[in-house]
Amino acid sequence: MTGSNHVRIVEVGARDGLQNEKTLLPTSTKIELIDRLSATGLTTIEATSFVSPKWVPQLADATDVFHGIRKLPGVSYPVLVPNLTGYERARDVGATEVAVFTAASEAFNRANINATIDESIERFLPVLERAKADGVKVRGYVSTVLGCPYQGEVPVADVVRVARRLHELGCYEISLGDTIGIGTPAKARAMLHAVAVDVPMHALAVHFHDTYGQALANILSCLEEGVRVVDSAVSGTGGCPYAKGATGNVASEDVVYMLSGMGMHTGVDLDALVATGAWLAAQLGKETASRVTRARTTSSS
Amino acid sequence: MTGSNHVRIVEVGARDGLQNEKTLLPTSTKIELIDRLSATGLTTIEATSFVSPKWVPQLADATDVFHGIRKLPGVSYPVLVPNLTGYERARDVGATEVAVFTAASEAFNRANINATIDESIERFLPVLERAKADGVKVRGYVSTVLGCPYQGEVPVADVVRVARRLHELGCYEISLGDTIGIGTPAKARAMLHAVAVDVPMHALAVHFHDTYGQALANILSCLEEGVRVVDSAVSGTGGCPYAKGATGNVASEDVVYMLSGMGMHTGVDLDALVATGAWLAAQLGKETASRVTRARTTSSS
Repeated sequence: MTGSNHVRIVEVGARDGLQNEKTLLPTSTKIELIDRLSATGLTTIEATSFVSPKWVPQLADATDVFHGIRKLPGVSYPVLVPNLTGYERARDVGATEVAVFTAASEAFNRANINATIDESIERFLPVLERAKADGVKVRGYVSTVLGCPYQGEVPVADVVRVARRLHELGCYEISLGDTIGIGTPAKARAMLHAVAVDVPMHALAVHFHDTYGQALANILSCLEEGVRVVDSAVSGTGGCPYAKGATGNVASEDVVYMLSGMGMHTGVDLDALVATGAWLAAQLGKETASRVTRARTTSSS
Repeated sequence: MTGSNHVRIVEVGARDGLQNEKTLLPTSTKIELIDRLSATGLTTIEATSFVSPKWVPQLADATDVFHGIRKLPGVSYPVLVPNLTGYERARDVGATEVAVFTAASEAFNRANINATIDESIERFLPVLERAKADGVKVRGYVSTVLGCPYQGEVPVADVVRVARRLHELGCYEISLGDTIGIGTPAKARAMLHAVAVDVPMHALAVHFHDTYGQALANILSCLEEGVRVVDSAVSGTGGCPYAKGATGNVASEDVVYMLSGMGMHTGVDLDALVATGAWLAAQLGKETASRVTRARTTSSS
């Protein structure tokens, strides 16, 4: 594998993960989760989402969570914002990094927010403008990059177009998400390769769900293509609204384990991450989806 | 990815998988399992093991199982034999392919069969001789190729030496097994690369357990290195006696899904495999370990 041996993990468990968990956690538990994650050496920890509580009851306490967490120097705590109202709430509590989201699939945008891709991007233009003026970093999520629950195939050209647009608009990093976890390594790599023609590789991240068990293999193939930022969620939290019973985000523990075994540096303390994942699974009352955590926490039982 | 786009799956669920499952299945269920697997297009289906019933109660009915299955033309049904007694029992029921096993770790052999690696190989020399005389194909398993529960690190040189010896002794194929599922892609690939210097790649197979979630990523890296035979178990049956609660063999469904998405040909009907995996999980009274099967069988619920 050529290229840098440093990989930045973007921990999305407290937002993308919890958002899709049915068990509602108390605010104090979410704060403890993020504080524990901060102590593992992670440098980017998505903290919460300032969407309408109507949409995502789990994250209705965004303000309290963001207020409550200990913010370590050198660690960024981005929050998701769907619009200017969300952005303003985020700014009110002192967020210095936000994330916006759209999809590469026209059908997905239509079904979810009743807009075309272009309209969905237009909707957060005010956020991008204000963020620029405020000196707030903006991360952009592009979902359904390898398939869509509504339209099936998603043309790579659409992924490229959306990613390029977000980059042009000022997103410092574009996270390419296989929302339904349907992609396989060669397709993931080809998609990344195509996007990297128009957007510098250092501004790209990959975001895989493990619905079909392909996440680590997909990450491996994207690392081989040159990406060095990987989204993952401690304990593999989350699910897939399009495949009930399916697993969610790839588990951070399993990603860090793989990277470490490959001589790649993440700066994350795997033992601390495993302990946090096991603790979180207990809070959620479910078995952890991390194989590493399962193997480590049961080997002596 | 260069090289042939045909991959042969060696289905080990009925032996390596069931061997490590606590729920004892009736003989008729095992026969139905193998008959269902035969109908998926698989060409190598490990059927059972002629070990002492004392060691593996699950496979005490080896003779009845092997008698009972419908043997399709073009499909091989290897059986595991630990010694000449097992070989003779296998031959009595008409087995035309057998498998022998040893480990690359001295400590593992010592703990499991109280022998050195060389002694363990000597013990099945009579099997290899008789098999040669009988025109019976012999597959060799080398376990603990990427780590050992007793000695930890296993030198690659030991893996190479054992694999070369098995090949010299007449094994037509050597399956390199990460018994405790601890390996990561770069190490797996380096190990395979080293073995392939001494044993032709076409005579090598890889055998990964998903204990740490690394199996598909490891398979991907070994495919990139040139291997074209992959062991897997429908529904990801089995477990790991060294990490209780951990997952077992990599699920055949997930392997076939990945390969298919990469344009690699296995000849296996994924739908039939998923149906068989879901059925087997129900027989075992446990959730399937295949992510693909989970995603497919729950998406409409």
